Amino acid sequence: MSRWAPNARERLENAALDLFAENGYEETTVAQIADRAGMNRATFFRHFADKREVLFGGEDVLAGLFADAIRAAPPEATLTECLQAALVAAGVVMTPQLRAAAARRRSVVAANSELQERGLLKHARITTSIAAALRERGTDELTARLGAELVMLAFSIAFERWMTADDDEPFPPFADAALSDLRARAAELILPSRLSA
Amino acid sequence: MSRWAPNARERLENAALDLFAENGYEETTVAQIADRAGMNRATFFRHFADKREVLFGGEDVLAGLFADAIRAAPPEATLTECLQAALVAAGVVMTPQLRAAAARRRSVVAANSELQERGLLKHARITTSIAAALRERGTDELTARLGAELVMLAFSIAFERWMTADDDEPFPPFADAALSDLRARAAELILPSRLSA
Repeated sequence: MSRWAPNARERLENAALDLFAENGYEETTVAQIADRAGMNRATFFRHFADKREVLFGGEDVLAGLFADAIRAAPPEATLTECLQAALVAAGVVMTPQLRAAAARRRSVVAANSELQERGLLKHARITTSIAAALRERGTDELTARLGAELVMLAFSIAFERWMTADDDEPFPPFADAALSDLRARAAELILPSRLSA
Repeated sequence: MSRWAPNARERLENAALDLFAENGYEETTVAQIADRAGMNRATFFRHFADKREVLFGGEDVLAGLFADAIRAAPPEATLTECLQAALVAAGVVMTPQLRAAAARRRSVVAANSELQERGLLKHARITTSIAAALRERGTDELTARLGAELVMLAFSIAFERWMTADDDEPFPPFADAALSDLRARAAELILPSRLSA
């Protein structure tokens, strides 16, 4: 087996999910994951910094897709159009294969607080990278941070709904609907408040 | 020294911050923190589950203040009024003492990724408890989650601004201003978008 095997990351991810399901996350070693994927430990560590990271490769991909889409949006795009472009771009990787892996991953992460913390760190980094991409367009600091939170919230809601939908449903309509729903909710927020002068 | 010393939590927190500054977070043990505070290890563990937790006691207090204020808001309160009530309630603990401790804590947390992950876990739990309090009032799921993210974002922005303001500035005006600023930004979001039909 070559050191530069194709799809090495994906094979390591699948091997890890298999072993975590069979033996538990804690009990599985990096050496076992590499072995199951037909590689060695050193190859694992070329792709992932530690055992936890093998569960979060998708988050790094998402961060890049969101930020690149916002950078590529036309200069005259509105904030909403930028957020839509980010969510559309994410749709590319939201395949049935990812969905199946996500369902397996969810049960591993739910049982381990260290993994939940790592997931939150990834979530925070994606949010930061979206906000940075918006700022590069000249979006002011607060709007950039609000926009980044909205992309993440829309993505989370769309993802939850997509995970419980029929197997062959594409992701993009879920993303569109979640962002529209959140924009409708945001309208409630800008209603005048009696407590504020 | 009694096992039930008054202000035990606060004394442990201050002792921990002293030792982390003197010797580093990694190098400090729970036994040393307890000893510096004039207590024993067992007392430490009655107040904090582990060494990391001693830095995040304030977050648990905040989660309670936010959620209680939302529960106590009048039934006819708008979403914005509920978010304002939560931020007003937090103002009670935003004392000059907390500000000084927060500045010391920040440098410890910035140097340690485990502590950042724990901070994010606390942040996520506060967000969840705000959303739960909003749902208990009959707020729909998406509005509750959006509202919770907005309280957290407004609080973060207010906190950052307050930390760089003059020493004697009270917190509540910063919270008011941050929420108002975010509501103004949210208006941009509900503008019609050319990409959405």
